[in-house]
Amino acid sequence: MGARPIAFDAWLAARVQHVETVLDQLLPEAAVVPQTLHQAMRYAVMGGGKRVRAVLVYAAGEASMPAGTAVSAQEIALDHVAAAVELIHGYSLVHDDLPCMDDDALRRGRPTVHVRFGEAVAMLAGDALQPLAFDLLSQMPVAPALIVQATQILARAAGSLGMAGGQAIDCESVGVALTGEQLQVMHGMKTGAMLEASVVLGGVVAGASSTVRQRLEDYAAAIGLAFQVVDDILDVTSDTATLGKTAGKDAAVDKPTYVSVIGLERSRELLESLRLRAHEALLPLGPASHRLAEIADYIVGRDR
Amino acid sequence: MGARPIAFDAWLAARVQHVETVLDQLLPEAAVVPQTLHQAMRYAVMGGGKRVRAVLVYAAGEASMPAGTAVSAQEIALDHVAAAVELIHGYSLVHDDLPCMDDDALRRGRPTVHVRFGEAVAMLAGDALQPLAFDLLSQMPVAPALIVQATQILARAAGSLGMAGGQAIDCESVGVALTGEQLQVMHGMKTGAMLEASVVLGGVVAGASSTVRQRLEDYAAAIGLAFQVVDDILDVTSDTATLGKTAGKDAAVDKPTYVSVIGLERSRELLESLRLRAHEALLPLGPASHRLAEIADYIVGRDR
Repeated sequence: MGARPIAFDAWLAARVQHVETVLDQLLPEAAVVPQTLHQAMRYAVMGGGKRVRAVLVYAAGEASMPAGTAVSAQEIALDHVAAAVELIHGYSLVHDDLPCMDDDALRRGRPTVHVRFGEAVAMLAGDALQPLAFDLLSQMPVAPALIVQATQILARAAGSLGMAGGQAIDCESVGVALTGEQLQVMHGMKTGAMLEASVVLGGVVAGASSTVRQRLEDYAAAIGLAFQVVDDILDVTSDTATLGKTAGKDAAVDKPTYVSVIGLERSRELLESLRLRAHEALLPLGPASHRLAEIADYIVGRDR
Repeated sequence: MGARPIAFDAWLAARVQHVETVLDQLLPEAAVVPQTLHQAMRYAVMGGGKRVRAVLVYAAGEASMPAGTAVSAQEIALDHVAAAVELIHGYSLVHDDLPCMDDDALRRGRPTVHVRFGEAVAMLAGDALQPLAFDLLSQMPVAPALIVQATQILARAAGSLGMAGGQAIDCESVGVALTGEQLQVMHGMKTGAMLEASVVLGGVVAGASSTVRQRLEDYAAAIGLAFQVVDDILDVTSDTATLGKTAGKDAAVDKPTYVSVIGLERSRELLESLRLRAHEALLPLGPASHRLAEIADYIVGRDR
């Protein structure tokens, strides 16, 4: 008889708590020179957040581990990958919030990094978080060939054809009428690329076969898109206090969103079809993928 | 009878020309979406410059290659490393020039990236150049274990204990009286870390033994420091037209430099002792290291 499965909420809370500890251990201490920079890096990354990317890494790792895997080395590797994706995500938020980008003063209910530390330190903190992510991958106790694969996946997800590229298109799109398809390309790069990378990286590091990896990619594409549709819906249906960031911001600057392009009702329908597509992709993976399935429901149902 | 050695100037010009071609091939095309971002990345990286880091990669590779090395794979790997260090250097210049940092409008005799493309695109171009560097390393046709080593070396040189950290200390030092030693720590991180990484990376990828690598590190430490001392001397002795960037800038903002801390005469003495230290470090490596020796003289003697 197997152990009774932990409920999703408890599992999620435990994973989030775990990655906070991992990040705390892997980030340079605030007392190490240059102290202000290290304080800013910690402030940027340790300020809470949903940790969706880290949680996806762990869930994908669980879904992919072949029987007989050396669990302890695998666990360390997954910790490093989970931290790495959170570092990249954290850096992107710091830079996005800067005055020359979104000019946001509030993030996760706290002053943004540049408000707290000044613009120069905020930019440098973001700049330094990025190589730290690759440093963490290089330290994983897995086969070097897997580290190289992981490095490439992370680099591409973060780069000009991934997150940074999506951000660039987003910047250029203020006041521009985008089609639903153009919107999908932009979000697929800006948010989807790193969410997908989180899933695939968890699988790769855990030793996923190419078949499993393909299913993970299908799953990831669906939830990556779903994540952004939810964001756009929340921007018009939620309030600043609940979100922990400024609500109604996209509409205020005339930024195209799913809601502005296809409307609230069709956005909700799209969301449900993406949720179903994510579940379908996981069917061949069996019970080991149940956390990924639960995360899909969680992403679709979240209120912040 | 060996081939007659090519004179240093001709070798240098050929290597610089070569890395320009390599960068042109490895950067995303300007016509690829997002076009503006890719144009800005190319503008940032392809705008000339001395290519000291790339040239160090090639010279260190030449000094380290064991007899019988498969030259073609090695050459591709050195090209990728040379491009990677130039991408990291290029991104750092783009971010350093931004208004929230040095606020410089001129670089290599041309408008800086944010003047030409706007601040948001400039920041994102820098952000996207960084992962591209790691992507290029991941594609090298050498043993995965060497790629992992290279990734770690580059990540640390670029990070908070290297270049980005030195930049942070520099920002905090405007108007602050630094000791000669503090100045050395700051420059060792800000400029030295990436110059040293360039030398060591060239060695690692070419299969340097640990003994050779140690000599390369000693050499690199000396020229890394020499490079900054020359920069500080040129800032007070040269003019804007020759430098291709604003001369007298450090003195104008009361930024500590070698010249302001130890004076022009002692700065020149320090420079000569560093040049000799670099030559000494290379002695055990024999004739294969002659380009590195010539580069030391070149760095010390440069006028821009």
